[in-house]
Amino acid sequence: MKTISIGICQVNVTKNKEINLTRAESMIANASHMGVDIAVLPEMFNCPYDKKYFTSFAESYPGKTTKFLSNIAKKYSIYIIGGSIPEKENNNIYNTSFIFDRNGTLVTRHRKIHLFDVDIKNGVKFKESDIFKPGQQVTVFNTELCKVGIAICYDMRFPELIREIALKGAELIIVPAAFNMTTGPAHWHLISRTRALDNQVFFTVASAARDRKSPYIAYGHSLVTNPWGEIIAEAGIGEEVLIADIDLDYIPKIRNELPLLRHKKDKY
Amino acid sequence: MKTISIGICQVNVTKNKEINLTRAESMIANASHMGVDIAVLPEMFNCPYDKKYFTSFAESYPGKTTKFLSNIAKKYSIYIIGGSIPEKENNNIYNTSFIFDRNGTLVTRHRKIHLFDVDIKNGVKFKESDIFKPGQQVTVFNTELCKVGIAICYDMRFPELIREIALKGAELIIVPAAFNMTTGPAHWHLISRTRALDNQVFFTVASAARDRKSPYIAYGHSLVTNPWGEIIAEAGIGEEVLIADIDLDYIPKIRNELPLLRHKKDKY
Repeated sequence: MKTISIGICQVNVTKNKEINLTRAESMIANASHMGVDIAVLPEMFNCPYDKKYFTSFAESYPGKTTKFLSNIAKKYSIYIIGGSIPEKENNNIYNTSFIFDRNGTLVTRHRKIHLFDVDIKNGVKFKESDIFKPGQQVTVFNTELCKVGIAICYDMRFPELIREIALKGAELIIVPAAFNMTTGPAHWHLISRTRALDNQVFFTVASAARDRKSPYIAYGHSLVTNPWGEIIAEAGIGEEVLIADIDLDYIPKIRNELPLLRHKKDKY
Repeated sequence: MKTISIGICQVNVTKNKEINLTRAESMIANASHMGVDIAVLPEMFNCPYDKKYFTSFAESYPGKTTKFLSNIAKKYSIYIIGGSIPEKENNNIYNTSFIFDRNGTLVTRHRKIHLFDVDIKNGVKFKESDIFKPGQQVTVFNTELCKVGIAICYDMRFPELIREIALKGAELIIVPAAFNMTTGPAHWHLISRTRALDNQVFFTVASAARDRKSPYIAYGHSLVTNPWGEIIAEAGIGEEVLIADIDLDYIPKIRNELPLLRHKKDKY
């Protein structure tokens, strides 16, 4: 059995970047002590998910947060999917996930492709494109464990993107996210399960903890879904390191029994 | 408010074609008396879902079953989505849905594109391609009510197809189906809800009733999902005419609040 252990750090994000990094380290250390291979942080783990903070918290690479992530990855010899942070490049800001390997080397970065511009009556209203530029690249990278694909939050609503990630060979798709109290209860489990099922991959979503005092309240419920569309691990709403063991051998078994990827057509 | 009333006839399919047609008429008549605009039958409503019957039950168009459907549509002045039947053309057999308008005129037909060839350990095993040829066409047609798209059962597992149907303008997607006791409990609600949500359409799946004496046991639970991914009507497992009122105005509302179709990229 080819098993990967993944630890999702459902951190409670504050307005203080230092505190956010300290908490992230404490949770990653905990994951490492539990024997986890890959630690995952949520979207905007170092900065409140609030437009008024994105610009002042933004960092160029390498910067405070990315140096921190690199050091922690090396210190604990663990892959880190660095949730996301506001990344500054020239005069642009991106919503970016930096990924480090066990040596602390930057593997790749994913810039959120689909910006969250929504206006739901009696629900959430947000316009990321006021601040962020969209990324343009699909992100899949290799590790000694398996191929991993990355998307950020609203990206997961687009089946074409997730399919493309799977077709590039990702067996594990990891999505740092920040669903809210409107879209979370309505769609979080549903979308996660279907993307896993349709693409016959393990699909992992990482949320921040639910802070009821925040203007944007994250839903929590970080979870991992298997290729049959079953949730195999799910967090509550507080700070928690959610650990899941992923049995990669389950992927070829399911793909053989229900050959969706072989049956799909290239064009309709 | 622009409302369409849809009636799903969750018929119990027997080995006797005459009885199947009689039951279908009785249920369609019931739907018509309830003021329904569109009556829907399940996949293989005139024939057991069993390889040993497909060839002997197959009909060329026009044939016994399609003439029957045309007459019933005219008699009750109702659209009929004729589930599916084994259709013979030259030496080929297709799994085909014939659609008739209120005058009994054939509007279009959909031939199942993705054939159900699966082999699930301790679960269902089936190989449609032993008998059927696959269809090649995406099916969307216009009515005075709205544009309607059709897929058959396993077709709904392919997000690209359902997206294409939505992009061709379908606001209501109707899927005659025959999920079973393995895939039904696992995936029926999940896939239905996500296809509706991703494409911001009404998504309707029509099953036969659950006949425990049949070698292939249909799951039942015909249902209708709205563009927010909520199930707005769901049948049990027995024979039942499930009626749902579809508020088309809800589609532009959801598409405006959460503009997925506008935010999706043409290429990744």
